Amino acid sequence: MQRRVTMTEVARAAGVSSATVSYVLSGKRPVSDGTRQAVEEAIVRLGFSLNPVARSLRTGRSTLVALVIPDIANPFYAHLASSLQDELRAHGCHVVVSNTGARREAEEDLLREVVNQRFAGVVMTPFRLDRDAFQELRRAGIPAVVSADVEFSDVDLVMPDSAAAVRQALALLAASGRRRVGVIAGPRDATGGDPRLQRIKDAAAAAGLSIPEELIVPGEHTRRAGVLGFRRLMAARHRPDAVMCVNDVTAVGVMDGAEHTGVDIPADIAVIGHDDIDFASLVRPRLTTISYPAHQVGRTAARLLLQQMDGRASRRVEHVVAEFVARSTT
Amino acid sequence: MQRRVTMTEVARAAGVSSATVSYVLSGKRPVSDGTRQAVEEAIVRLGFSLNPVARSLRTGRSTLVALVIPDIANPFYAHLASSLQDELRAHGCHVVVSNTGARREAEEDLLREVVNQRFAGVVMTPFRLDRDAFQELRRAGIPAVVSADVEFSDVDLVMPDSAAAVRQALALLAASGRRRVGVIAGPRDATGGDPRLQRIKDAAAAAGLSIPEELIVPGEHTRRAGVLGFRRLMAARHRPDAVMCVNDVTAVGVMDGAEHTGVDIPADIAVIGHDDIDFASLVRPRLTTISYPAHQVGRTAARLLLQQMDGRASRRVEHVVAEFVARSTT
Repeated sequence: MQRRVTMTEVARAAGVSSATVSYVLSGKRPVSDGTRQAVEEAIVRLGFSLNPVARSLRTGRSTLVALVIPDIANPFYAHLASSLQDELRAHGCHVVVSNTGARREAEEDLLREVVNQRFAGVVMTPFRLDRDAFQELRRAGIPAVVSADVEFSDVDLVMPDSAAAVRQALALLAASGRRRVGVIAGPRDATGGDPRLQRIKDAAAAAGLSIPEELIVPGEHTRRAGVLGFRRLMAARHRPDAVMCVNDVTAVGVMDGAEHTGVDIPADIAVIGHDDIDFASLVRPRLTTISYPAHQVGRTAARLLLQQMDGRASRRVEHVVAEFVARSTT
Repeated sequence: MQRRVTMTEVARAAGVSSATVSYVLSGKRPVSDGTRQAVEEAIVRLGFSLNPVARSLRTGRSTLVALVIPDIANPFYAHLASSLQDELRAHGCHVVVSNTGARREAEEDLLREVVNQRFAGVVMTPFRLDRDAFQELRRAGIPAVVSADVEFSDVDLVMPDSAAAVRQALALLAASGRRRVGVIAGPRDATGGDPRLQRIKDAAAAAGLSIPEELIVPGEHTRRAGVLGFRRLMAARHRPDAVMCVNDVTAVGVMDGAEHTGVDIPADIAVIGHDDIDFASLVRPRLTTISYPAHQVGRTAARLLLQQMDGRASRRVEHVVAEFVARSTT
């Protein structure tokens, strides 16, 4: 990639101060015609890019795009951040990642900062936020994209299209003789309920498998939630012989729990995750999972964000296809 | 933790607009005595905290603290971010994580944004940045802490104290009959050279082990660098029987490489990482490593940052002790 020419270099080439260059670009203060011409010539000669500095000066808006997520320890979001950044770098934007810990107060605080600091945009995976929490951003004219399984109003959305993959997962469990399926699900108070749980229930019904209520354990989408959830499942009157997990990090927690209690995966219990993070293929046994490609989610979110920056006002919803990947935990 | 009272709630309680509350707090516009009194009463009654909103209004400074890191896919930094955030939350600061991909241009851009946006502070692990790159932040009065193995001027530092742990690691290799040690090191153009490599060389000499130059492979501190580095080591005229890695993510890459080529760890080759990220104890075989506690690095960086916010001007250097953890790859 070409090195970006700085405003200081433009100023030096034009024989003026950096402040003068900024006045020429922003029009905030009057500049003599001769000076303006010298600056504009230097800009053309050096190939100085008006983005993002000039845009930032003109609009008072930052070059920062916030990625607001519930769990920075989940590698899915690291991949999402990298992908988003790769797409937005060419447009002069820097991605900063902000971890809410799935706390609603932090989610609200961070959206407020995004408005206060006039961020260039925000991509968010909300967890406990109100569905209409993006109205203020819209009023402030700040582009926003939500990456989630549930609908939020007034905002572009990137959602998984995972019904077929989940059906394949449950069909495999049925075909391999599993009968009682447990679920480490999301928390009961998450915004919009738990669409992943609903998809699992639908697919289980289609495969002729039962998911007894006592085997649905709510959790926080974390590795710790997997450990705790596994303990609760093992304490059930009738233990499950398979566990569907809300994501891979939770599935890894289930594997921790199984190892500590001498439960064999997959002989005693099958485990299926969601996301296919890097480490899913590295843990032993290798994790069977629903692959949800973070890089494609990031690319899609970036595209939606850039369209909004370019003036698109109508709302868009995009789906990214998830795929079932059978490995060694089933 | 107590829920923070918002400015909107203060405005509602005082029967005024949020803008009026902000004028009372900032003094930016005149407000009638009666209105001021109503707002101040509401602030006291609701227990509205002047931090960080009022500070932000008074100083024009953001409540955001930037954590600028070279590789967001390395879980060490996710732990560091969480710890930093836990410490700073009570002080009304939000941590945003910014990934440079170890590119010098991105490092410089992000420091410029930190100044432009008047961030409340920055914690950074530089990779290719000039050692004096923090002078502009100092001039702007923005608190800064560097977490690194090398010295940077004009800025507080958190460094590992790992010499003893590295000596233990090399002593174990010698005691278990290893003779030729390879190193997946950092890149040749990293700022300040490669102090981890130097510590490994010193410890190898003390343990009577040789590290031939052809077995020192430079890399980018990534999992991919581990895969590539392992290939180069296996192509050496005399292969190593042990590999020291610059961090755990690189060591995991070495394990990928070994698996793909049928090389047995630890029978054919011992592997030692650095950091002790979560996944070090989850991969199979479990990774032997130099444990460098990210949570303590985060806590220390937060303390140094808060001291600067409170007015400390003299420079501090703090050391966090690293410990050798022997598992199954040695």
